[in-house]
Amino acid sequence: MPSVSLKERLNEVIFGTETPAGKLFDMVLITAILLSVVAVMLDSVIWFANLYHLELLWIEWFFTLLFTAEYLTRIYCARNSWQYMRSFYGIVDLISILPTYLALIFTGANYLMIIRLLRVLRIFRILKLVRYLSEANVLVRSMLASRRKIFVFFCTVLVLSTVFGSLMFVVEGPEHGFTSIPKSIYWTIVTITTVGYGDITPQTAIGQVVASMAMLTGYSIIAVPTGILTAELATEMQRERIGRQCRNCRKSGHDRDAEHCKYCGAQLFE
Amino acid sequence: MPSVSLKERLNEVIFGTETPAGKLFDMVLITAILLSVVAVMLDSVIWFANLYHLELLWIEWFFTLLFTAEYLTRIYCARNSWQYMRSFYGIVDLISILPTYLALIFTGANYLMIIRLLRVLRIFRILKLVRYLSEANVLVRSMLASRRKIFVFFCTVLVLSTVFGSLMFVVEGPEHGFTSIPKSIYWTIVTITTVGYGDITPQTAIGQVVASMAMLTGYSIIAVPTGILTAELATEMQRERIGRQCRNCRKSGHDRDAEHCKYCGAQLFE
Amino acid sequence: MPSVSLKERLNEVIFGTETPAGKLFDMVLITAILLSVVAVMLDSVIWFANLYHLELLWIEWFFTLLFTAEYLTRIYCARNSWQYMRSFYGIVDLISILPTYLALIFTGANYLMIIRLLRVLRIFRILKLVRYLSEANVLVRSMLASRRKIFVFFCTVLVLSTVFGSLMFVVEGPEHGFTSIPKSIYWTIVTITTVGYGDITPQTAIGQVVASMAMLTGYSIIAVPTGILTAELATEMQRERIGRQCRNCRKSGHDRDAEHCKYCGAQLFE
Amino acid sequence: MPSVSLKERLNEVIFGTETPAGKLFDMVLITAILLSVVAVMLDSVIWFANLYHLELLWIEWFFTLLFTAEYLTRIYCARNSWQYMRSFYGIVDLISILPTYLALIFTGANYLMIIRLLRVLRIFRILKLVRYLSEANVLVRSMLASRRKIFVFFCTVLVLSTVFGSLMFVVEGPEHGFTSIPKSIYWTIVTITTVGYGDITPQTAIGQVVASMAMLTGYSIIAVPTGILTAELATEMQRERIGRQCRNCRKSGHDRDAEHCKYCGAQLFE
Repeated sequence: MPSVSLKERLNEVIFGTETPAGKLFDMVLITAILLSVVAVMLDSVIWFANLYHLELLWIEWFFTLLFTAEYLTRIYCARNSWQYMRSFYGIVDLISILPTYLALIFTGANYLMIIRLLRVLRIFRILKLVRYLSEANVLVRSMLASRRKIFVFFCTVLVLSTVFGSLMFVVEGPEHGFTSIPKSIYWTIVTITTVGYGDITPQTAIGQVVASMAMLTGYSIIAVPTGILTAELATEMQRERIGRQCRNCRKSGHDRDAEHCKYCGAQLFE
Repeated sequence: MPSVSLKERLNEVIFGTETPAGKLFDMVLITAILLSVVAVMLDSVIWFANLYHLELLWIEWFFTLLFTAEYLTRIYCARNSWQYMRSFYGIVDLISILPTYLALIFTGANYLMIIRLLRVLRIFRILKLVRYLSEANVLVRSMLASRRKIFVFFCTVLVLSTVFGSLMFVVEGPEHGFTSIPKSIYWTIVTITTVGYGDITPQTAIGQVVASMAMLTGYSIIAVPTGILTAELATEMQRERIGRQCRNCRKSGHDRDAEHCKYCGAQLFE
Repeated sequence: MPSVSLKERLNEVIFGTETPAGKLFDMVLITAILLSVVAVMLDSVIWFANLYHLELLWIEWFFTLLFTAEYLTRIYCARNSWQYMRSFYGIVDLISILPTYLALIFTGANYLMIIRLLRVLRIFRILKLVRYLSEANVLVRSMLASRRKIFVFFCTVLVLSTVFGSLMFVVEGPEHGFTSIPKSIYWTIVTITTVGYGDITPQTAIGQVVASMAMLTGYSIIAVPTGILTAELATEMQRERIGRQCRNCRKSGHDRDAEHCKYCGAQLFE
Repeated sequence: MPSVSLKERLNEVIFGTETPAGKLFDMVLITAILLSVVAVMLDSVIWFANLYHLELLWIEWFFTLLFTAEYLTRIYCARNSWQYMRSFYGIVDLISILPTYLALIFTGANYLMIIRLLRVLRIFRILKLVRYLSEANVLVRSMLASRRKIFVFFCTVLVLSTVFGSLMFVVEGPEHGFTSIPKSIYWTIVTITTVGYGDITPQTAIGQVVASMAMLTGYSIIAVPTGILTAELATEMQRERIGRQCRNCRKSGHDRDAEHCKYCGAQLFE
């Protein structure tokens, strides 16, 4: 009985976001995640890592043990442990603590490279932050509503990139940096998205004409995802307004800041 | 009689997308197209092509014969063979198999270059994929509805590019990379579309002022196609959501508050 | 009397766009303008100009005399000659023929440079094309309606550019290419508009942090002109719809393709 | 009594924008601010500063004394001096005159660098201009209404930059310019915002694939702030157009079909 009570209380603190204790736990966790991410970042700066090598090692193990304790507690107090472990955040929580332990075992000849890779994986801890962005709801719903159209759009972009990339490979050829079709496609994506590094640029007149066409294409199809999302967002935000209903005349469509019904003047609640 | 029946059944499988057999055929065809495109891409990567030269040759001939068989079957079982051959996809189907055969004939001194060019043309096979993107309807309709406005916009961009390009040619001159007006126009398109390779950049103070004006112009007219398309998309998507159909003339696309069909005047129900 | 009649008829052909003769004249004039612009462009390509020097000279004089004749005829047959000469297109028409004549007089020591500059000015002939784009009306009206907001937006961009440019000048300094505040402002405009040539890039850590902030600012305020114009365009396009009114029930808001009133079913005219 | 009257009149001229004297004062002040900013800019151009060193010094002291006098007068005639001094513009006014005085005191060994830094701070005087842009109201209100969504969006961009930056650091490594995770994040921001300097570019095939994914992500999430702001702007502009005001509580911003004030419930007329 008391054990169940402890489990329940822990569950409220760790998974809940309503009680003061739950809110405090979330704040502490977010701070810990951000600090650990900063530590991993600093560890990658060579002169800093050489100077504070030991301190960074201590910090890394401190956060790893902390997150391990958190992970085990979550498994213990979750209403359905197995469901939590298979959930998106359960897997993220596990992945964010594994690398430090794995770095202990794999210390062979090429350990430097592997450790770096494993360590860096811990940066995915940052994904845990997404959980706390409750404001993101309207955005996410709009994106989900437009995901099929966005998918069609991306297929079009990829087909266009392939066609333009192949054309540029034929027109410019390996002697001007377009060494293969995949590399030409990379160049086309750099161009169509208007990033334009300039590491590979068309040198011939025909190549510059084709490149100009690719740029103008990219410039005009940049409008498509914007249009899709804007139309969806406008609908979502309108729906948020429509959600409010007057208890007197049953009409809806009131603004968020409205205190009285705009049709009958009755007070609005909630 | 049985021959007509076979033709009808083939037609259903190859051109239809409703029956299970038709859907399976489409899936197989899409996979084949994607695989053949990947083969052409890999063929352009020098070290890969040297290693697997023979295998790539076999794969190319396999797909070419497969698509030839498909093309001939389509001609045979189409309800109007001549109409199919002149249609957009009929021409794409033909173009996508021609290069491999042409490469057999043109094997002169400069055969390497020509074969590469012919081979690459086969990548237009990827255009066949567009046929399968039925989700693209709303997007395509919005684009068609706004095509006149987009055309006016592109003319404006080209006029602006010509004016800015000429100005930069005069201001900077050949000694700073602006060797001719066409090249200056290429630079202006690179700048206005915000791609910005950096292969040619203004060096003089006046040139940098003109370039800044070109950038700010591009930055603000980038809004125009977005605005046009968003406005059209919002209308299209609202209409789609309603999906009201007239019982008399079977046409749809009526507004939410419409009581009569806007095409035949019959009353709309529900 | 006959002279007035000739003047009237000429006026209809040259200024009018309704009669067949007026349309034909416009088409011929557009073609002539485009050809003369192409000639000026080719003249700037060195190897081409050396090869066809005499031909290009002949073409230039042909078009200059043609446009001079057109200009004089316009003055002669305009209902108010002085008003035409002071109008925007009257001035453009004059400017587009002047350079060739001026090049005859100014043939001093540095004639090469000046002639080039004068010749290039003729490219403003292309501005005459704008007259023929009657489709541009909705776009232009939306832009005029939002011009005050766009102006405020541009002031904000310039202030931001000045602030970020000064910051970068202090942080990076002349040794990393930021040789003066005006040049730093040029760099900031290149960055905020997301053009990003890469001719000047931040080298210090603090400089890269400030640059990242400038980029994210540019990335998010790119939304402002789009938002303004989209909102205006949506209103304009809605107004176009509202314009149609049913003669039976007097209600408006019908689609462009509607043939019957959606409220009462009566036929729509015009 | 007359002193209070003078204070009142000064207050009207300096803080007010309604009377002719107030408007004239504002115009003179804006001109002075712009001129002083231009002087600071020219001072940073080396050859110009060497040529007109004395003149620039005189101009700087002239404007500094002018703005000091203005600042002291503002403190004197403000209705609540302490409130003005702590306000945003009060602090800006102070900061914009401090550097020149501080440059007098700190003239040690490294004075050149510090003076430059202090001088440049005076450019924040330009921020005072914002006060005069009353047109900016709709824009600012739309931005405030969407600030929570924009904040969520920026958090997403930063998380994505961290993830992509770490991935690129592992994939490309220090030998291709990705010397540390912070620098990789800088590169990712340059790429996602489609700026694309090209000072650091992916060299390996995997790196180019990851970079392409980052570009396409940036290309499509560029739509999010636009969508948010457009939806808010459309609402704001519609409301502005209506301009309906409640006679009871004097609040405006009511919908076109509202019959009662949404704030106090009183009936709306006309």
